[in-house]
Amino acid sequence: MKIALWQTPPHHDVQTALEQIDSAAKQARAAGAVVMVTPEMALGGYNIGPEKCAELAQQADGLIAALKQIATAHDIALVAGLALPGEGRPFNGAIAVDGHGRELCCYHKTHLYGDVDRAQFTAGKALSGLFDLHGWRIGLAICYDVEFPEVTRSLALQGAELILVPTANMAPFTSVATRLVPARAEENAVVVAYCNYTGHEGDFDYCGLSCVCGPDGNDLARSKASDSDVLIADLSHAALADCRAVMTHLRDRRPELYRP
Amino acid sequence: MKIALWQTPPHHDVQTALEQIDSAAKQARAAGAVVMVTPEMALGGYNIGPEKCAELAQQADGLIAALKQIATAHDIALVAGLALPGEGRPFNGAIAVDGHGRELCCYHKTHLYGDVDRAQFTAGKALSGLFDLHGWRIGLAICYDVEFPEVTRSLALQGAELILVPTANMAPFTSVATRLVPARAEENAVVVAYCNYTGHEGDFDYCGLSCVCGPDGNDLARSKASDSDVLIADLSHAALADCRAVMTHLRDRRPELYRP
Repeated sequence: MKIALWQTPPHHDVQTALEQIDSAAKQARAAGAVVMVTPEMALGGYNIGPEKCAELAQQADGLIAALKQIATAHDIALVAGLALPGEGRPFNGAIAVDGHGRELCCYHKTHLYGDVDRAQFTAGKALSGLFDLHGWRIGLAICYDVEFPEVTRSLALQGAELILVPTANMAPFTSVATRLVPARAEENAVVVAYCNYTGHEGDFDYCGLSCVCGPDGNDLARSKASDSDVLIADLSHAALADCRAVMTHLRDRRPELYRP
Repeated sequence: MKIALWQTPPHHDVQTALEQIDSAAKQARAAGAVVMVTPEMALGGYNIGPEKCAELAQQADGLIAALKQIATAHDIALVAGLALPGEGRPFNGAIAVDGHGRELCCYHKTHLYGDVDRAQFTAGKALSGLFDLHGWRIGLAICYDVEFPEVTRSLALQGAELILVPTANMAPFTSVATRLVPARAEENAVVVAYCNYTGHEGDFDYCGLSCVCGPDGNDLARSKASDSDVLIADLSHAALADCRAVMTHLRDRRPELYRP
């Protein structure tokens, strides 16, 4: 299964964002990808202030409908970050739709990072559910979520084989993309795809480095820090099975010894 | 606080091992270190078969007494890997003694790796207790243990600032030393010191790369793959505090959402 990550600067106008997603989805599908992931809050931008986030959340139904149209038009699944109606503040959300425009999963970021996230959003109440796409069992996480080994472990223990992560990761935290995301893949023998912004947004200097890490932790594909691109990676169930035969972490755990 | 890691080929004769530990401890103390870590099963070797391990465990009292003498002679704490009496098979153990020869901690490896470990040892029943040395709160793990994020997380949640890890890590698993150990340090904002063998032992080609990773995950010191050396790293409580002010993972956890 080929997957695509759309590394882009933020687009604050949602119509522009949708046009760019449409263009990237067309490019991804032409390259053989059956799912494309966007960065966090791809529909409207991330570092935009609480009022703008609240406005975007009110438009969520229309934005999701537009995403479903794009997915259907190009016959490609989409995992896109956007503001979703919450309690008081909106959720920092990600929605997965299949190539027929059907909703597969809706997730609310559970670990809010720093003052910007907390001012703009309400934390989600549950980790991602899992869904199936082209024979792969998939879970979602958003940005800071993936820095917690507990999140990817929980998804892997439920059977996730692939974890898709929209993010908005800024300098100087490149080690998330180069160290922690590869570690999450290796320690769970799962594929982790981490789709970041490039460019600038307010004080934030996004560090790109979007990546797809295989179940041995090694890069299957990686973007540069500053390129806008549609990154393609080809996933193999046979390679996953080979890796899981050797990587024994999931079955050698001793949960009775661990702190909650 | 300066710490030392003794990267060495395995020594199958315990008298030779003790002489080499004595020599390395003297060198470490001269370099200003107040604690020295050895590889896993430093007293007699790791890939040595169940009978040899059982024999070594029966000598544990004498070997521990010898370690205490070395620690006292050089006024340096030691964390050494050795076989300890178990139930049926021995434990794959690590003992910490201070520079006055007093026992600080005794730990039994809880995660046994593969056929060699399981044939030779019984798994421990609890994670390491913590102990204090020169103002640092310290826990132990052995080799495969540290590959499980749950182990270092459990120790960090109890207050560990430094985790000392005797290991016997072989090719091709260099990513443990270069990716997972740095990730354990960064995701918990702790120092992790990973002391490996170099050289060969039976089928095993040890990959060295002993390291001390700071609380931001970056190397404070690292040995090469094939050198025998006494690696020194200088730890700073001020640097730990600075890092912990920025690295927010420990306080941003949401344990109510995680699988056990």
